[in-house]
Amino acid sequence: MTRTVLESKSKSVTIGFDEPFCVIGERINPTGRKKLAAELEAGDFSTVEKDALEQVACGAMVLDVNAGVVYNSNPNPNETEPPLMRAVIELVQGLVDVPLCIDSSVPGALEAGLAAAEGRPLVNSVTGEEERMELVFPLIKKYGVPVVAISNDDTGISEDPDVRFAVAKRIVERAADFGIPAHDIVVDPLVMPVGAMAGAGRQVFTLVRRLREELGVNTTCGASNISFGLPHRHGINAAFLPMAIAAGMTSAIMNPVRPVEMEAIRAANFLMNHDPNGGAWISFSRVLDAVEAGESFADAARVAEAAGGGRGGRSGGRRRRG
Amino acid sequence: MTRTVLESKSKSVTIGFDEPFCVIGERINPTGRKKLAAELEAGDFSTVEKDALEQVACGAMVLDVNAGVVYNSNPNPNETEPPLMRAVIELVQGLVDVPLCIDSSVPGALEAGLAAAEGRPLVNSVTGEEERMELVFPLIKKYGVPVVAISNDDTGISEDPDVRFAVAKRIVERAADFGIPAHDIVVDPLVMPVGAMAGAGRQVFTLVRRLREELGVNTTCGASNISFGLPHRHGINAAFLPMAIAAGMTSAIMNPVRPVEMEAIRAANFLMNHDPNGGAWISFSRVLDAVEAGESFADAARVAEAAGGGRGGRSGGRRRRG
Repeated sequence: MTRTVLESKSKSVTIGFDEPFCVIGERINPTGRKKLAAELEAGDFSTVEKDALEQVACGAMVLDVNAGVVYNSNPNPNETEPPLMRAVIELVQGLVDVPLCIDSSVPGALEAGLAAAEGRPLVNSVTGEEERMELVFPLIKKYGVPVVAISNDDTGISEDPDVRFAVAKRIVERAADFGIPAHDIVVDPLVMPVGAMAGAGRQVFTLVRRLREELGVNTTCGASNISFGLPHRHGINAAFLPMAIAAGMTSAIMNPVRPVEMEAIRAANFLMNHDPNGGAWISFSRVLDAVEAGESFADAARVAEAAGGGRGGRSGGRRRRG
Repeated sequence: MTRTVLESKSKSVTIGFDEPFCVIGERINPTGRKKLAAELEAGDFSTVEKDALEQVACGAMVLDVNAGVVYNSNPNPNETEPPLMRAVIELVQGLVDVPLCIDSSVPGALEAGLAAAEGRPLVNSVTGEEERMELVFPLIKKYGVPVVAISNDDTGISEDPDVRFAVAKRIVERAADFGIPAHDIVVDPLVMPVGAMAGAGRQVFTLVRRLREELGVNTTCGASNISFGLPHRHGINAAFLPMAIAAGMTSAIMNPVRPVEMEAIRAANFLMNHDPNGGAWISFSRVLDAVEAGESFADAARVAEAAGGGRGGRSGGRRRRG
């Protein structure tokens, strides 16, 4: 059974075929968030603090940290992103005790993040582009950490799932050349918007199954891509996630602050027999009760967490989170 | 591709691997509904009328009709159920133009229903019990209709999915002895409550896949069984249905008057590429808008239907319903 082990200072999270679905919180990312980008350039970390605490309260088991701000004062991210990555990581791991996912396309920022992170973070990401693999894999090997592998290569993103599978296979093979085992590669098969490509859903389900059965790797995705541009996208996401989980998907990078998606994931964990005695579901149902009574999801989740419900319930779930 | 064709007076619904999920409305059933049972014995059909109209408005493509009332005035259902079945069927098909599912354990009621129903109804059900097959299959053959086959036999309901598969296989083989083709058998693999049996979800997903791949049959289930006894059961149902659909389940007998489950099914249809251009999803999203604005689901759905949205949207969905 494939197990990708992530660690914070004192907590361990396993992404695996026999584990509850791993929710990687996506919020700490200035891409498309102008206000957050401006705050970070100004040295204001208040939104990062809020996002870290809120995501963990809502059930994120890992936090993605992206510091990709293009400063108005200095347009060279190779200079500005590494120190910002270090600062954000130090802040976040001082606030919450969950493993981190270091997210950057700037090699210097990945290295700064790896040097700053406690435990065993996940790196996000490498692609099948040869230059990228030669930059990232030595870092992965040096720090002995797992990495997200995105199935595009020098030819771009193929719409053909067989090509995306072949790219993933090649990344796993190239990683082996660097001494990196398959269980430390978490493949992102790339989720296309179903509004633009009608076969996007089935394609991902088939790819996930093949990646699991033929390559033995864990998988992840940017889950909300599936519903891009559509009305009531949370409804699409909340069906997509259980379907992907049933196909074998083991993690997603997503917004955990929406109860609809988290409800779908917790129900899917139960239905996959990854929630012994339904302890986590029963705890979560109290959060849903409080949300229905008018509380915010994060506040309701905090109350449940304080009552000891967040760790899988009295019946002793296996869910590990901070 | 397996296709089970059902017909009303003028509408056709196909249960099939390449069709939108077939929602069979379960409400017209006095089992566990004391008030409805008393009404039916008294000749009051007002609840049946309401249930027929409301379920079709909410998206039921087929209506299950069960007339299993044990009369206070006459405890012999062999005498009372056949005429009641006929009366309910005549009433329902005068109100709505969807195919019916004739649901009884009383052979005389099945025959009365078959004689009364227009088009090509589904019969619910036969089991793997030899006596039952010898009673039901001749009726199925005589009327040339499809039948739901429940995977239990003379030894009861097995908790072992391999035994349930073997029972389904035997029913399909025995049906063939009567000249009934596999595409007219819709297997119910039996859904156990996940609260009582932790592996219930995975078991069904595996069974559905095997039934489809090895026997080539359509499948159905009593979907809400999965969440029996649990808090927030609609959340469990709304994850279970997309997972079952991803595994290949092609229909369910369920309550269509809950927007949560219907939203999950419509999203799953889209993700399975059974909703061309998302036309049905986009129409349905307007119903969800109206529900969020405070309208009842049935009223919101009726407005959308009147506006032409209920047939799959402007872009021409394949969804067929009345």
